[in-house]
Amino acid sequence: MVERRTPISIAEAVEKVMKHKLTGHVELIPLEDSQDRFLAQDIVATNDVPHFNRSPYDGFALRSKDTSEGSINNPLEFEVVEELAAGMVSTIPVQKNQVARIMTGAQMPAECDAVIMLELTKEFEKDGKKYISFKRSLKEGENVSFQGEDAKKGDVLVKKGTAINPGIIGLLATFGYAEVPVAKKPIVGLFATGSELLDVHEPLQPGKIRNSNSHAISAQIRRAGGEVRFYGKLKDEFELSYVAISTALEEVDLLITTGGVSVGDFDLLPDIYQKIGADVLFNKVAMRPGSVTTVAVYNDKFLFGLSGNPSASYVGFELFARPIIRTMLFSEYPHLRKETAQLAEDFLKPNPFSRLLRTRLFYESGQLKVIPSGVDKSNITTSLAGANSLTVLPGGTRGFQTGDFVDILLLDDQEGSNWPW
Amino acid sequence: MVERRTPISIAEAVEKVMKHKLTGHVELIPLEDSQDRFLAQDIVATNDVPHFNRSPYDGFALRSKDTSEGSINNPLEFEVVEELAAGMVSTIPVQKNQVARIMTGAQMPAECDAVIMLELTKEFEKDGKKYISFKRSLKEGENVSFQGEDAKKGDVLVKKGTAINPGIIGLLATFGYAEVPVAKKPIVGLFATGSELLDVHEPLQPGKIRNSNSHAISAQIRRAGGEVRFYGKLKDEFELSYVAISTALEEVDLLITTGGVSVGDFDLLPDIYQKIGADVLFNKVAMRPGSVTTVAVYNDKFLFGLSGNPSASYVGFELFARPIIRTMLFSEYPHLRKETAQLAEDFLKPNPFSRLLRTRLFYESGQLKVIPSGVDKSNITTSLAGANSLTVLPGGTRGFQTGDFVDILLLDDQEGSNWPW
Repeated sequence: MVERRTPISIAEAVEKVMKHKLTGHVELIPLEDSQDRFLAQDIVATNDVPHFNRSPYDGFALRSKDTSEGSINNPLEFEVVEELAAGMVSTIPVQKNQVARIMTGAQMPAECDAVIMLELTKEFEKDGKKYISFKRSLKEGENVSFQGEDAKKGDVLVKKGTAINPGIIGLLATFGYAEVPVAKKPIVGLFATGSELLDVHEPLQPGKIRNSNSHAISAQIRRAGGEVRFYGKLKDEFELSYVAISTALEEVDLLITTGGVSVGDFDLLPDIYQKIGADVLFNKVAMRPGSVTTVAVYNDKFLFGLSGNPSASYVGFELFARPIIRTMLFSEYPHLRKETAQLAEDFLKPNPFSRLLRTRLFYESGQLKVIPSGVDKSNITTSLAGANSLTVLPGGTRGFQTGDFVDILLLDDQEGSNWPW
Repeated sequence: MVERRTPISIAEAVEKVMKHKLTGHVELIPLEDSQDRFLAQDIVATNDVPHFNRSPYDGFALRSKDTSEGSINNPLEFEVVEELAAGMVSTIPVQKNQVARIMTGAQMPAECDAVIMLELTKEFEKDGKKYISFKRSLKEGENVSFQGEDAKKGDVLVKKGTAINPGIIGLLATFGYAEVPVAKKPIVGLFATGSELLDVHEPLQPGKIRNSNSHAISAQIRRAGGEVRFYGKLKDEFELSYVAISTALEEVDLLITTGGVSVGDFDLLPDIYQKIGADVLFNKVAMRPGSVTTVAVYNDKFLFGLSGNPSASYVGFELFARPIIRTMLFSEYPHLRKETAQLAEDFLKPNPFSRLLRTRLFYESGQLKVIPSGVDKSNITTSLAGANSLTVLPGGTRGFQTGDFVDILLLDDQEGSNWPW
């Protein structure tokens, strides 16, 4: 007998998943390894930047009050009493009508409050001593980078949950974070089910296909910030599959299976959920592709039963598993980032269910536009390769035309949305 | 004496660099390790997909000509002669008024040309045999996924130089690429120069700062697709620095130094280039930050002399070193991707030189907008952390206002531009 399932909306399904969200954990890792990881706490300035007054230019540090008479008609002469490279500290007090040669980044002598740039001066010698002359006056503070003008000690500079980019790495180095507190990567277990699956290195056989889902999903897990534990393929045999899945569940935070969640005679997952005692949150979503996506929870672990169809498993992962992973990475915006874009192609066929179209996003004079990234049948892998977004076409009686504004979900973005539905 | 340098435009500088571009190399790596690497050749379909006619639904495979009389008033009865799970191959020929139960993804029996979906049928038994009935006719090809309808053997599916995303990984698996030809990562050597630099773990000292540039640039190198070889810090001592740099140059494709390229008394790089015999392409660019950026070539190797200033080195890397790295990764679009965006804030101060503003890009109803990501002085690290774009403000006598359209360069994008200037 065919089991009749009641589909729920995408929003409802996502909401059910997010009610059970898991808590992340913190680990300290070396700065060199922290790129693309997620901050487990806010980054706070551990000192002022700069932490001393310094010169932003090559030039001469001086006391501005000594220059008040300087002008185009009244050149001033100053004795050069010291030479300060970056990293050096002044040892000779700069007195009236004296200057210190100062390089970019060097600390200002305590007595000085301004810097005249090298190219505005003339150097000369007199009585074996070095002098400069120039034809202007300087204001107090002119050409000085003051302590704390970039950041003040205690400032919150980057928020917890942010992905660590090169700029943030520079900031972490500046503030002495030789080790960085990041979110531990959630461990995501993965099984492929289906007796029809061959390994990638195997030659094709009649009726069989290579297992591509496990590889694509592994890459999606890594893109989301998780760590993959691949448990291999399961044949369509109940007892074997039950033991493998319930054992793996002990070792991971989330467990993903592909295939076996439909209502076919060899779809074993529904019975496995039952035998485990997992609470099935839903087993049908009013969307294409991915309508048979099933999510269940058991003892604070998630079981994601994704379709065996490549596009459906891809979409199911991004909609339901990604936000759980990102929540464990402390993101306040765990969902795919939602934006508005204009269709650059007609999509006239109406759909009874919401459709997640694999699309290619581009810009035209700064306006976001999308086109389908391939022939959009749910069994079609090639369109996923070129997709950088999913376009959400709400179900209904009408199609969509070029120029219509539609919601899109960005696949390669690190910022996310807090609730796109 | 102050050396007078003649600044050239950004476009001219980039052009000089790209004239000397380096050739990439190919390596074969396991599929599991290929994520985010760059394809060294086009991906070609090694077989049709699907490689056999298959059923996209759970249902019954049949010969459409046997259903021509079926209608709401004329239910048809068919005998079920076999059950085909995905991966199985039909062994009993389906004859007149017979069907084979078929699961999603299973190969069609050779005699059959259509599938009736499970939910449109009633199952029953008669004389110990299984039967179904349904009330409609089917057309030839109805509910069949035909061999090659997704991809035909020989089709070029993804172009050389493309970054490998999860969808492409799925495609590679589908076509049996257990090993993937990718571009070797260019080896990028890195030195920090300057006696003022402390290591990240060291406590601050008067006049000294922690070395943040090497860490940020390392992350930029990795983001661009290169492999970092960090050679450490160099004090401002000529002979030591010359030996270290000329030795390292033998071991890398590109060598980056930060600091020491200005005209200060401790800026040693210009003399080191001379002693090596490197051809200096330029040593001053009409831009802020990064005007003192120097690029030299020697024996098919690049020497990038970036400023010691964090923002200037960041920008110098992205404009001049990134396209060389991406060219070695076979990209046809090696430069930062250029798009148009609207300023969401005034930037009224005119600049004599082109300015590369660190900006935060966002969307408003699908329109790209940018705001400065922090206080935009070239010594300010914090604005780099929040920047996802550089906004190009051409030099001139006027400032820029909210709503003005400006060119932006995207920092986190994998597509790139072939010539943004």
